[in-house]
Amino acid sequence: MTSYNKLEKRFGRLLALREAAGVLHWDASTMMPEGHISAAARSEQLAALGTVCHEILAGSDVSDLLDEAEGLNDLGSKSLNSWQAANLREMRHMWVHATAVTADLVEALAKANMACETKWRTARTESDYDGIKPLLAEVLKLVKEVATAKSEALECVPYEALMDEHTPGLRQDLVDPIFGDLEAFLPDFLAAVLDAQATAPQPIIPAGPFPADQQRALGERLMAQLGFDFSQGRLDISLHPFSGGTPDDLRITTRYDEADFATGLMGILHETGHALYEKNLPEDWRRQPVGEARGMDVHESQSLLIEMQACRSKEFLTYAAPLMKAAFQRDGPEWEVDNLYRIYTQVAPGLIRVDADEVTYPAHVILRYNIERALINDEMTLDDLPSAWNEAMQSLLGLTPPDHASGCMQDIHWFDGAWGYFPSYSLGAMTGAQIFAAARQADTNILPAISKGDFAPLYAWLGEHIHGLGSLYETPELIERATGKPLDAEIFKRHLQSRYLA
Amino acid sequence: MTSYNKLEKRFGRLLALREAAGVLHWDASTMMPEGHISAAARSEQLAALGTVCHEILAGSDVSDLLDEAEGLNDLGSKSLNSWQAANLREMRHMWVHATAVTADLVEALAKANMACETKWRTARTESDYDGIKPLLAEVLKLVKEVATAKSEALECVPYEALMDEHTPGLRQDLVDPIFGDLEAFLPDFLAAVLDAQATAPQPIIPAGPFPADQQRALGERLMAQLGFDFSQGRLDISLHPFSGGTPDDLRITTRYDEADFATGLMGILHETGHALYEKNLPEDWRRQPVGEARGMDVHESQSLLIEMQACRSKEFLTYAAPLMKAAFQRDGPEWEVDNLYRIYTQVAPGLIRVDADEVTYPAHVILRYNIERALINDEMTLDDLPSAWNEAMQSLLGLTPPDHASGCMQDIHWFDGAWGYFPSYSLGAMTGAQIFAAARQADTNILPAISKGDFAPLYAWLGEHIHGLGSLYETPELIERATGKPLDAEIFKRHLQSRYLA
Repeated sequence: MTSYNKLEKRFGRLLALREAAGVLHWDASTMMPEGHISAAARSEQLAALGTVCHEILAGSDVSDLLDEAEGLNDLGSKSLNSWQAANLREMRHMWVHATAVTADLVEALAKANMACETKWRTARTESDYDGIKPLLAEVLKLVKEVATAKSEALECVPYEALMDEHTPGLRQDLVDPIFGDLEAFLPDFLAAVLDAQATAPQPIIPAGPFPADQQRALGERLMAQLGFDFSQGRLDISLHPFSGGTPDDLRITTRYDEADFATGLMGILHETGHALYEKNLPEDWRRQPVGEARGMDVHESQSLLIEMQACRSKEFLTYAAPLMKAAFQRDGPEWEVDNLYRIYTQVAPGLIRVDADEVTYPAHVILRYNIERALINDEMTLDDLPSAWNEAMQSLLGLTPPDHASGCMQDIHWFDGAWGYFPSYSLGAMTGAQIFAAARQADTNILPAISKGDFAPLYAWLGEHIHGLGSLYETPELIERATGKPLDAEIFKRHLQSRYLA
Repeated sequence: MTSYNKLEKRFGRLLALREAAGVLHWDASTMMPEGHISAAARSEQLAALGTVCHEILAGSDVSDLLDEAEGLNDLGSKSLNSWQAANLREMRHMWVHATAVTADLVEALAKANMACETKWRTARTESDYDGIKPLLAEVLKLVKEVATAKSEALECVPYEALMDEHTPGLRQDLVDPIFGDLEAFLPDFLAAVLDAQATAPQPIIPAGPFPADQQRALGERLMAQLGFDFSQGRLDISLHPFSGGTPDDLRITTRYDEADFATGLMGILHETGHALYEKNLPEDWRRQPVGEARGMDVHESQSLLIEMQACRSKEFLTYAAPLMKAAFQRDGPEWEVDNLYRIYTQVAPGLIRVDADEVTYPAHVILRYNIERALINDEMTLDDLPSAWNEAMQSLLGLTPPDHASGCMQDIHWFDGAWGYFPSYSLGAMTGAQIFAAARQADTNILPAISKGDFAPLYAWLGEHIHGLGSLYETPELIERATGKPLDAEIFKRHLQSRYLA
């Protein structure tokens, strides 16, 4: 067996164990009894899996095997094919992240995250920033240590090393011009959209209640229409919707608000976008690094492509409106396609990121990107965080949070140690817009088919240009090969202009 | 850290990973989509967990650590306490089983089991014994190799090494006299019971349908009454009912037949008996070998104690009858306690083990014990299996199976490689009878309390004498300490005589 073959076997086991952890995470959010005793036992199980996975990755001989296999790749006569070479590149990337930090630091950060996140759950409801600050300071201190250690191994600056955990290869020289462009564009554009909407017909909101079982039936009907195969997946309920499980056993979740079916339905379609990316990853490379999804920005591009680009389109709503009426046994002007489209494209600046519309969402992300980078770079302290937040919110959206719960304490990310994650949301939105535009240009039947509920042309194109490629290419190359150009904020801006000001 | 402490850490991780596998097994039977693609991925996850667990157990230094810790135990000044010493004994026992066979043999047997079990699922419905025989021969061949290898390590005969996998320490010199006693007792006793029932009032069977949700509500009501805590467990549906999950997260399952609530309800109570044993295992020793359930015979004793001893009693039915009537909104003579008791103590010889009543069940087990031991000992070949089965069934119960589906192909065990398992069912029934008799003698309030739905006195006694002891004592000592004498078939026979011929 060659060094490369040995690595394939080792990483195959590692990723099978991560799949197991994925199912246990899903279970914890959907099925596990709510008592703290079950949760404590689950923590032990996941910690044991985490330790075993780390030991496989950081095992004493993995470094030698990687060196040997990379040497093999340089030898023309015995070179690896392109998938194997990419697999080896991804293995090295996982290895660098795993070995750049000591086990003690990883454990200290995990404990700090858990303490801070637990406290945050109560402190947020009380807007108690001073109460959470010491715990957040401990998290930030350790995150900086991780960032510094990984930045040396990855040859980048510390903040980039954090982004790299979620979106491999992402660097500031890609993010900065794009976010700068958007930051300049958004204020005037938002003002123009709000003006236009003020004089347009107002959406009529369908009155509830919409029973949860009817919402579920409609959701499952549309999931199936998109291509979700219920012999390989499920839809369940959880407090925070997510897409989990494994590529062969997709577990997406939602929650039902009986007063408002529209938000929940789009949530289901968003998670379906994530799930179908996983399902269509290259089958021949299951449980190998090259067979995994490309990164959080590309993952988010696939959920937002479905939710924002495809399913908030007039074409999709033309198809879905009769199904909505039938599902809830309703009729009337509020169920007309034009009205549903007004509902699904309503723009309203707000304080809460997860409730934000497509136009104002980037403002929430840019605010967080600027702040978290400044904190990691010691250009700001935690004492300054609330005022920096509120000033940026006023500057970007003209709003000032009345309390920290709807301000700097609203997201779990920082309190749970997930720094460097936020940029992928907006990069995903832009990437999704660019990929959808390229797909429509390549196959002009994609949108007409969607108006008949037929997603096959769209998924055929996505399968060939995105999903089936797994992690074969690094993200910039993947985007350029699929769309003919590097990530370009102009395409996203054109989408916004055409949808909101046409 | 001492060698013993190192072992505790190692085995703690091992048992946390086994808990994870337990949750994944539960999920596979209850929640996982039914497609073969999800099942194949789950197999990979469980295989990876199995490999990792085996590597932890058979790690190169575990043998030295065990030797050192056992030496430590001999030193008076630094000796382990009784729980630690028992923990070490159980660690050694797990290690012997794990290291007695090569990884190649384990893998070959796992593959043979899977091939044979898969084929059995279709072959059974067609009663195609000739079709399954070559695959069963391969399983048997490899099981014998395992038995031989383990018999040397355990210093016992090969068949005993197989029993030892399920019921540590069980040997033929315990089983043979007890089963011989029962085999002599049963034919005349059964004839007498059938005579008595022929002249007694016949049970009136309540007519269905009994909606599944009403059955579930009644089941959950009675589970809670027994002490099942739904903040640490769930009741779900699966094709084959079982008790799974972990001690802190109990997952029991059932299936509902809308024509017959009585069988399903007893099934739920049976699984609740298993689950509450797990729940009440010593909390201080979670995820350590000494904190685990004692073995399959003791486990079965706790489910049968609840189902057969406690819940088929007139006392329990006195409590449950009004709840049954209320659950199904019924009334009439079929809901009288005496009639329900007749239903739940009806004896009728049949071909199928899992449908058997308390009186005829041991005959099914003794038949299998004799046959599987003869096959392992090369005293019989697979060619002789069907005729040996049918002759024994005629001799024990006066019945001849019309086909192999209701004969020697009915149980999954042999086709799935679980040889040496059957004895634990009847040893469990006898152990359960003996423990219940001892509990009632020690606390005469136990049965009167049950007639009011109060299981607290019973579980207080079981907690002190069985559950809370985990694997501190080996099985014979556990039984003798709890009941004052070794396992004694007379107590079980007295129970049968008092229930069926009084």
